[in-house]
Amino acid sequence: MFDDMIRHPATWLEGNGTEAEIVLSARVRLARNISGLRYPPIAQQEDREKVLAYAEDAITYGKDFLKGRLLYVNDMDIIDRDFLIERHLVSPEFMQNASARGLYIGPEEKLCIMINEEDHLRIQAISSGLTIEDSFDEASRADDFLSKRLEFDFDDEFGYLTSCPTNVGTGMRASVLIHLPGLVLTRDIENVISRITKLGLAVRGFYGEGTEVLGNLFQVSNQTTLGRSEEDIIESLGQVTNQIIDYENEAREKLFRDARDQIEDKIWRAYGILSNARILTSEEVMNLLSAVRLGYGMGVIKDISLNVINELLLFSQPAHLQKYLKMKMGAEERDFARAKLVRQKLAKSVASG
Amino acid sequence: MFDDMIRHPATWLEGNGTEAEIVLSARVRLARNISGLRYPPIAQQEDREKVLAYAEDAITYGKDFLKGRLLYVNDMDIIDRDFLIERHLVSPEFMQNASARGLYIGPEEKLCIMINEEDHLRIQAISSGLTIEDSFDEASRADDFLSKRLEFDFDDEFGYLTSCPTNVGTGMRASVLIHLPGLVLTRDIENVISRITKLGLAVRGFYGEGTEVLGNLFQVSNQTTLGRSEEDIIESLGQVTNQIIDYENEAREKLFRDARDQIEDKIWRAYGILSNARILTSEEVMNLLSAVRLGYGMGVIKDISLNVINELLLFSQPAHLQKYLKMKMGAEERDFARAKLVRQKLAKSVASG
Repeated sequence: MFDDMIRHPATWLEGNGTEAEIVLSARVRLARNISGLRYPPIAQQEDREKVLAYAEDAITYGKDFLKGRLLYVNDMDIIDRDFLIERHLVSPEFMQNASARGLYIGPEEKLCIMINEEDHLRIQAISSGLTIEDSFDEASRADDFLSKRLEFDFDDEFGYLTSCPTNVGTGMRASVLIHLPGLVLTRDIENVISRITKLGLAVRGFYGEGTEVLGNLFQVSNQTTLGRSEEDIIESLGQVTNQIIDYENEAREKLFRDARDQIEDKIWRAYGILSNARILTSEEVMNLLSAVRLGYGMGVIKDISLNVINELLLFSQPAHLQKYLKMKMGAEERDFARAKLVRQKLAKSVASG
Repeated sequence: MFDDMIRHPATWLEGNGTEAEIVLSARVRLARNISGLRYPPIAQQEDREKVLAYAEDAITYGKDFLKGRLLYVNDMDIIDRDFLIERHLVSPEFMQNASARGLYIGPEEKLCIMINEEDHLRIQAISSGLTIEDSFDEASRADDFLSKRLEFDFDDEFGYLTSCPTNVGTGMRASVLIHLPGLVLTRDIENVISRITKLGLAVRGFYGEGTEVLGNLFQVSNQTTLGRSEEDIIESLGQVTNQIIDYENEAREKLFRDARDQIEDKIWRAYGILSNARILTSEEVMNLLSAVRLGYGMGVIKDISLNVINELLLFSQPAHLQKYLKMKMGAEERDFARAKLVRQKLAKSVASG
């Protein structure tokens, strides 16, 4: 399974959706809980196992749509777990406790379902570019299929019930992973984040809540799940995202107009270091790739595909690197192997570009 | 003349002498003063003009050996002057006052004679690599030819008389320009400099006395001119230089043994930045070229010639850059043009390597 995943990078990495140069991916997740069973934060082992068994049954029953595979966290070693976190298929929290936790992964990784995370089920769909509707459709279809065998806790007044009150209602979190180097360089990012926050959206780092911003990648998501329809939330996130894209493009135009040489210098130096360095940390790769991605977006670097930039972003992460090279490595070995992989992929990209 | 110099870089840049990878060049200069004329620090305009006329006559008379050209500082604009300083043919002091100052430059720039610098004549010979004897022979032959028409102040007890007492005796300063990145990286350089100094030699920066060390390039020269023969001074400088080369090679072996990845990373990053940057200051070029030169010396970078590294070291200097591109430029324009030139020369070097 994992080897397959390495060979066929996730669909959301293809860089072919709408606005895919700035918006890496759109994601929708639905929180659902099965009636009559205690919610994960207070569940006994027995409850958790029931949830897992019920979910497994519902997935099997829905196999016309749910054609992927079910994995168990218990079967995974630490690298597998980190691999899935890096791939943005699961939350870091999900991997901290293996007990009765299952993970369904659909074909091309468009869909996944975490079983016994904070809620009984977390249905997630992810797609490349500004494609929130696509992800919502995918997640909704999964929800429909699961509902055929499972009864979810639903309150007529509140909507779906969840472990944490912030998810009650639609149980939905829609988000985009968006690359904003222009706004960071012009130092307008703080203003933009503050404006987004006032509109009721949250801005987070690369790996979600409480994580650092790396490579100028931001996750923007809805805060509110209650009192609004799914369609309303998605429309509003789409509008705000389009607004952010406009701001980012304005920032890039401004940079190109006022500091073109400096920006091109920054972009090409990043490219030069990535193509030549012998030691690279994953953090440095993310920051350098950010500049190369900006270069691609501004038409400065042409001999490279967005696909390769996205792939490198993922494959330079520690667990991906070890899976890809099929060996366990310490931090120093990884930095060396990472630099080699980056050089090879870039050389190949340019040669075939 | 200057255009010719640009088209045919100086012989000492060819990087083909003994130990040329570590020792860029060896230089010998002889200070001579014409009897009966006041020495430059106290000379009247009349004296200075006589010196220039006499020197011109002696050079013309010695044309069997002195086949080069005589230039006048008065005819040179500021870029020409800086150009000659950058080329290490004249001292910065020489260019600060143009009055009756002449400069003879021999074929391939192996020899030059400053007229009315601190002494009436400063005969300088420069050659590639650890070739102090070659430079001494060249300077001595020029001295012999000039002596046919000029009578130099010579005291039976002291030897040649000079404006500054530190030059009395042989009037000779022999020096090597030596690249010591290994010793800088292992932090042994301070010890080595202190040892050299105790042996009666001086260590200076790239442009001589009082100048900064750039690109890990050091000038090592004799301090003493009195009470020792020329041969003795040259032999002693040669021995010390060989000792320094041994220290440098030991430092490189140590680095290769203990921190190979880190060193290779440093070297390749420098190469990557030089090959890709859009803005480069001359100082940064010197420091990055230092790493690339180390890479060449350690066999890490193979597709490059020492010649190109030496050329870039020189041609990235402000006046060389402007001469080469045939345009006057401000600092920002130069940084941009410099980066372009470096990219082109490196790409050509690799393509033909």
